[in-house]
Amino acid sequence: MINKVSFKSTVKNFKAVFLDSYGVLKNHQGLISGVQESIEFIRDQGIALRVLTNDASRSQQQQVEVFEKLGLKGLKEEEIVTSGMLARQFLELKIRTGKIAYLGTENSASYILKFGLEAVPVADIDLENSRDISAFVFLDDEGFDWNRDINKTVNFLRRNNLPIIVANSDKYYPISNNDVAVAIGGISRLVESVLNQKFIRFGKPDSQMFMYAYDELNNSGHYEKGDILMVGDTLHTDILGGNKFGLKTLLVLSGNTRAQNVESKINSSGIIPDFIADSILE
Amino acid sequence: MINKVSFKSTVKNFKAVFLDSYGVLKNHQGLISGVQESIEFIRDQGIALRVLTNDASRSQQQQVEVFEKLGLKGLKEEEIVTSGMLARQFLELKIRTGKIAYLGTENSASYILKFGLEAVPVADIDLENSRDISAFVFLDDEGFDWNRDINKTVNFLRRNNLPIIVANSDKYYPISNNDVAVAIGGISRLVESVLNQKFIRFGKPDSQMFMYAYDELNNSGHYEKGDILMVGDTLHTDILGGNKFGLKTLLVLSGNTRAQNVESKINSSGIIPDFIADSILE
Amino acid sequence: MINKVSFKSTVKNFKAVFLDSYGVLKNHQGLISGVQESIEFIRDQGIALRVLTNDASRSQQQQVEVFEKLGLKGLKEEEIVTSGMLARQFLELKIRTGKIAYLGTENSASYILKFGLEAVPVADIDLENSRDISAFVFLDDEGFDWNRDINKTVNFLRRNNLPIIVANSDKYYPISNNDVAVAIGGISRLVESVLNQKFIRFGKPDSQMFMYAYDELNNSGHYEKGDILMVGDTLHTDILGGNKFGLKTLLVLSGNTRAQNVESKINSSGIIPDFIADSILE
Amino acid sequence: MINKVSFKSTVKNFKAVFLDSYGVLKNHQGLISGVQESIEFIRDQGIALRVLTNDASRSQQQQVEVFEKLGLKGLKEEEIVTSGMLARQFLELKIRTGKIAYLGTENSASYILKFGLEAVPVADIDLENSRDISAFVFLDDEGFDWNRDINKTVNFLRRNNLPIIVANSDKYYPISNNDVAVAIGGISRLVESVLNQKFIRFGKPDSQMFMYAYDELNNSGHYEKGDILMVGDTLHTDILGGNKFGLKTLLVLSGNTRAQNVESKINSSGIIPDFIADSILE
Repeated sequence: MINKVSFKSTVKNFKAVFLDSYGVLKNHQGLISGVQESIEFIRDQGIALRVLTNDASRSQQQQVEVFEKLGLKGLKEEEIVTSGMLARQFLELKIRTGKIAYLGTENSASYILKFGLEAVPVADIDLENSRDISAFVFLDDEGFDWNRDINKTVNFLRRNNLPIIVANSDKYYPISNNDVAVAIGGISRLVESVLNQKFIRFGKPDSQMFMYAYDELNNSGHYEKGDILMVGDTLHTDILGGNKFGLKTLLVLSGNTRAQNVESKINSSGIIPDFIADSILE
Repeated sequence: MINKVSFKSTVKNFKAVFLDSYGVLKNHQGLISGVQESIEFIRDQGIALRVLTNDASRSQQQQVEVFEKLGLKGLKEEEIVTSGMLARQFLELKIRTGKIAYLGTENSASYILKFGLEAVPVADIDLENSRDISAFVFLDDEGFDWNRDINKTVNFLRRNNLPIIVANSDKYYPISNNDVAVAIGGISRLVESVLNQKFIRFGKPDSQMFMYAYDELNNSGHYEKGDILMVGDTLHTDILGGNKFGLKTLLVLSGNTRAQNVESKINSSGIIPDFIADSILE
Repeated sequence: MINKVSFKSTVKNFKAVFLDSYGVLKNHQGLISGVQESIEFIRDQGIALRVLTNDASRSQQQQVEVFEKLGLKGLKEEEIVTSGMLARQFLELKIRTGKIAYLGTENSASYILKFGLEAVPVADIDLENSRDISAFVFLDDEGFDWNRDINKTVNFLRRNNLPIIVANSDKYYPISNNDVAVAIGGISRLVESVLNQKFIRFGKPDSQMFMYAYDELNNSGHYEKGDILMVGDTLHTDILGGNKFGLKTLLVLSGNTRAQNVESKINSSGIIPDFIADSILE
Repeated sequence: MINKVSFKSTVKNFKAVFLDSYGVLKNHQGLISGVQESIEFIRDQGIALRVLTNDASRSQQQQVEVFEKLGLKGLKEEEIVTSGMLARQFLELKIRTGKIAYLGTENSASYILKFGLEAVPVADIDLENSRDISAFVFLDDEGFDWNRDINKTVNFLRRNNLPIIVANSDKYYPISNNDVAVAIGGISRLVESVLNQKFIRFGKPDSQMFMYAYDELNNSGHYEKGDILMVGDTLHTDILGGNKFGLKTLLVLSGNTRAQNVESKINSSGIIPDFIADSILE
């Protein structure tokens, strides 16, 4: 079994750190107590940081605001990397004309699509007259009537052959100590199953998320992969993705993975972090 | 390529026929014109018939009533075999005490659970006090709020370890010439994906559906598997299931599988009917 | 958690018992010590027994001989039910002409195909002249060169559209306390993955295996499903299949599922036996 | 339907082109006639080129030599990007000590592992004494006895929890106009299925392959994603991967995807190239 380490003494050996959000910085109760101090420790050491989160519901600015409301001060917009930013980049590069249909909130759509194309919520699509729609995005689990709009999505996609992307590949997210909510990545899998297709998914563990953060980081200095520590609470997203991209990985036990089952989860998944720590507090 | 045959001259060689409902007897517009005459032809030949349908929303009696409203007269209750009947049998044999929670309409629950146990719709479960619930059933796609009750189902099943069954394994069903609706079998796959579990599913192509119909048929005479022709419009349910159970199978082109793509569908799936006919009309 | 019971005091309440072979009667070292006495206890109580095993390598007679060599006396041929018998029944009912190609040993082929059709090992197929072959069977993991014959199987099946069946759906089987061997069910999944098809699989947990044993049992008396106890060491085959068929199920801890992880395996799989016992010895 | 274009008039609008190898430059008969002229056309236009191939059996130098033997002159080592190079990078970054066990040829191992660690073919592993092995690599389908070494791999990986990587994710590769051979990516899926794990896979369609080529390309100039055209014959690898990475994509009909089924393949997969051309010849 991998021995536990201290986060602070481990992160010192790196020039940059990528931090997952839920389970590392915050949990269902709010900010994890003591995280502000750890972030300041990182900054004091001159270590660059980025927060990598599978989320397409908010802009970088809104993410920073949410952290501030929770009590975490001083995060900068450019330190936030979301799966929604990858979706936006894809749409900017690949979709030049037409409207973009989506499942999600109007806020998520206005952020993802702010580069100019018109967004149409599924509820407003006219199935008989939808040729002007050039892509479909699964954005967020909120903002629509599941009974009506999931069925409408299925039928729209059966009739139209166009690029379909999922802006957050997570199946679910925690909403309390016990409970979760189905995320848009889970809803997209239902539609995939009915259509017998696979859509383009963005978010950890996919390498593209790490590459995006890595490229962006290198705009403000020179970093090799070996200079970066990925920190997360989930083996299948944070650790798997970090490992594959070639980063050193540190699993914290303050979120999805708990001390009592970390060993069996590592053994059954075959996903092995380089380090394990209780949290980023020590 | 398999040559097309006449249904009537083929069915003559069998002592019994199993008929799928949608695509064989009816379609989105109602009863397929001429089906009444074909059913009478079958009866005149002394051939026993059963209708096998993946559906848990209605009782046998209600199924007969729906056919009568569409204009098909003379079907008997005992000639209807639904996947809901298998779910009911499972619950009768395996669940002796407690309440049974479900997703679906009250009508579907009252039918499936009429043997005595109390049914609780997911909306009425108290997550903090649910120890008296001894099984969970995915019954029907209607009768509940998807946003609220799918999430509640996920959290109920995360907290409780109990038998979970799916009373209709179909992912979707046709509602018009172009469009479909997600069936409860599709919704159950979303929950399976979030929980990373596989539930117990009833319905074609599973052998148990054919076995149920076969056993029931043999209560009214002596039939070998070789005496029975399975007729359906869908390769992955009717034909695959019939083949595996050891029946001769006839694919009709009056439903899901169309003349223009039947050959490519057979080749890509590897599911090969013994016979192909345009419909059961000739 | 389900409390442990005594097998003997539990089985007394049933008219018949279905026993898995590996992990219940024998293990990698041979017969489980004391099993002879348990079998005699079952017979003394007037309880009918059947051994249900996913295996297509040996006939019923050969299975009895193997048990006798291990030291278990008195099993009768008709008490053995193998997945190979289901494959044979399928071929008898569905394939009337032509040759049957197979992966496996000559012994397995001679047993499965003894009803008359000619068997051709994959190694002997002429890819350029194979129109007389009317079905393909995955029989056994032994008896062929994997490098050469798996590739040849892939290419034969790419060129020919015919019924493909898997006579033992298990992915692997134990060969020692630590080690396993890939079974023909595992090899069939490799070919399925390359061809992007699903073949027809026989064996537990599929209902058809239980139905076959149930029908056969009822040739020698009258048994309802509620009269039968299924005993096995594996949740995903014995217990899942028994539960779905409507039998009461008893998990023994003398094989694949061990006392130290039974609870976590039940929780993560959602497959719940009615009873748990250490073994069939007490 | 997307109209067909001329490759040459399309590629003119880009600063760089990524070319798949099989189906674009060569086929089972050797070099596609006329390809030399197209490569020269690309160079004459001042367009940078890279060849992206899922292959871990040969070094860049050996790849260039093979092309030269086939008759394609002038490719440079640095223009070749293989999935094996990604596997090598992963091992260099993540595995610092110990030996690396592998399935494949000695040549593939010597190339992938040339940075220093000792390579051990599976055949030479001592299962009872293997603690000095720190990673496992699926390299190539040749160079080992499948019956013996696939089983040994399964048992080695059941006993040891270590990073497992697949250096070529393809399931199969063409060996003639009709026939294919199972690739190491296919064999790795068999082992995944037995172990119930997912390994780390390298190769198209994964973004990491495109990122590697993109980063490397940018060492010799400045290229945005919008400056690059990805050309391939396979929707699920070349086109899906290129689309997701944000490149414009061109499907050629000189390999896996043929003119007669291109439309149905695009519709059923939902993978839509930006352009379609018969080949790169015109």
